[in-house]
Amino acid sequence: MEAKRLQDARVCIVGLGLMGGSLALALRGRAAKLVGVELHAATRRRALRGRVVDVVTADLAEGARQADLLVLATPVSVILTTLAALPRLRPAGCAVLDLGSTKTDISARMERLPAGFEAIGGHPMCGKEQAGLAAADEMLYCGQTFVLCRNGRTTPRVEQLALELVTAVGAQPLFLPPETHDEIAATVSHVPYLAASALVHSAAAMADERVWPVSASGFRDAARLAGSDPRMMLDILKTNRAAVLARLAHYQQALTAVAELLRADDEQLLSAWLSETQRHYADYRQHKEGFKEGFYVHADDGFRRQHAPE
Amino acid sequence: MEAKRLQDARVCIVGLGLMGGSLALALRGRAAKLVGVELHAATRRRALRGRVVDVVTADLAEGARQADLLVLATPVSVILTTLAALPRLRPAGCAVLDLGSTKTDISARMERLPAGFEAIGGHPMCGKEQAGLAAADEMLYCGQTFVLCRNGRTTPRVEQLALELVTAVGAQPLFLPPETHDEIAATVSHVPYLAASALVHSAAAMADERVWPVSASGFRDAARLAGSDPRMMLDILKTNRAAVLARLAHYQQALTAVAELLRADDEQLLSAWLSETQRHYADYRQHKEGFKEGFYVHADDGFRRQHAPE
Repeated sequence: MEAKRLQDARVCIVGLGLMGGSLALALRGRAAKLVGVELHAATRRRALRGRVVDVVTADLAEGARQADLLVLATPVSVILTTLAALPRLRPAGCAVLDLGSTKTDISARMERLPAGFEAIGGHPMCGKEQAGLAAADEMLYCGQTFVLCRNGRTTPRVEQLALELVTAVGAQPLFLPPETHDEIAATVSHVPYLAASALVHSAAAMADERVWPVSASGFRDAARLAGSDPRMMLDILKTNRAAVLARLAHYQQALTAVAELLRADDEQLLSAWLSETQRHYADYRQHKEGFKEGFYVHADDGFRRQHAPE
Repeated sequence: MEAKRLQDARVCIVGLGLMGGSLALALRGRAAKLVGVELHAATRRRALRGRVVDVVTADLAEGARQADLLVLATPVSVILTTLAALPRLRPAGCAVLDLGSTKTDISARMERLPAGFEAIGGHPMCGKEQAGLAAADEMLYCGQTFVLCRNGRTTPRVEQLALELVTAVGAQPLFLPPETHDEIAATVSHVPYLAASALVHSAAAMADERVWPVSASGFRDAARLAGSDPRMMLDILKTNRAAVLARLAHYQQALTAVAELLRADDEQLLSAWLSETQRHYADYRQHKEGFKEGFYVHADDGFRRQHAPE
């Protein structure tokens, strides 16, 4: 890799969907060149028309040749096959960052890249119900956490480049071991997806046309994740199976516990559970407000709370 | 009851929280007089200052005396005790509508009111995470479903008055037997609340300060219902225990089914489940969009789909 700074780097984004497209929009003017690799012709036309990237191609080899930094922004299974193909497509190596939703398998695969490659895993904690370039938004990453996962192919140079990219799009970096990322993501993202999906399945199974009219904004929000792209979710579930199963079992235990309190008609314990729920929720919201205001900074072993402003 | 039309009726709203306060705001100028009954002095002051009602009192008997239509807008347990007290407070009877979140117990209690009373159950399917008059919004009911439940004390006159009120606030009436309401509400509201709460419990139980920074908008929406008022939720769960337990068991079965597919690494069946999820979700969203555009009208046995506009 020649370029040490983002502004001098030719960045090639593989996959101009919601995440890759939003990244491209946020990086405009902050890199030496933006190249897009995209299989769908309609998306390539949209990307050029909207000046999302400087150059776009359907050919990964061609895109990779033009890149100092390759950003893989496809579903996880495509990231894995792309990493396997890279040594052949780009024998001299380059810097690689991915945006995949699970990190353990991708990190292991990055470690097997040959010596010319410098690679780091990434996962921006943002998204939308809608997929595709049409939904891309240059502010998507702004103010959000961007997890970075080091592996055996991570050098200070690729780490510095990734940190510059994270800062350029307005996100907040958070370094995590890939296994920790995957366990936390199972808890706050993959199990919530299954929880939302099961709500939709259970309501649809009533087969009563009056169910949807009675549903209101609470159901809308609780169910929203069920609208996620099934292909993306299949990759996520497959590459994070053990953590998802463990956290799902934990989630089911929490449901069983409150069901027991309700069945036993134990008003005191049930009331305590409901109050604890609200307390946990308030803690969570308070953290998010604090995080938005920048009370947290990244550190080598995760993040640190700064002193709150006076 | 003297007044046959809402515009001639003195309406007394018991409880000026989010629901009662929003109702009062939406009814301004559409009833002969708006009276509020509210125990909290600060809320009474706010109600007068904001001209939410014409008159406000802490005394239920005084409020009831001034009403042709009494609207009970408190948590379910308070609605039940208020209904029990009404015959003593208002011996001549009056029209009664409630806004409680569960309907079977309230309907049974309404049926025990003496002959001078005319009563109908109601449940507007709208709400907010925030409670209290400060969060009240005159548009809260607009475009939302307003369930109405007949009981042995329901007369054509109180039904007409309730329908006028529903229309006046811009909502869409949907008649349901109380037991049907409670089973559907368990599915689309009470179980989703428990599902959201268990997500928050499970995430908090990790006791890892990196959990909240990694959580993003998907978790925020999936967890939002966990912020609901614990006292209101306790009443709901207690008065809808059987339906909530049955629907929660069904929900847990859906979770167990998908866990089995994931554990068995059955990619084909798992993929089918994920696609079915997205299809159900699309059906649901399509219905909500159609409902908003008014394709549905109420009928005696529920609602009927009108011909879609050309």
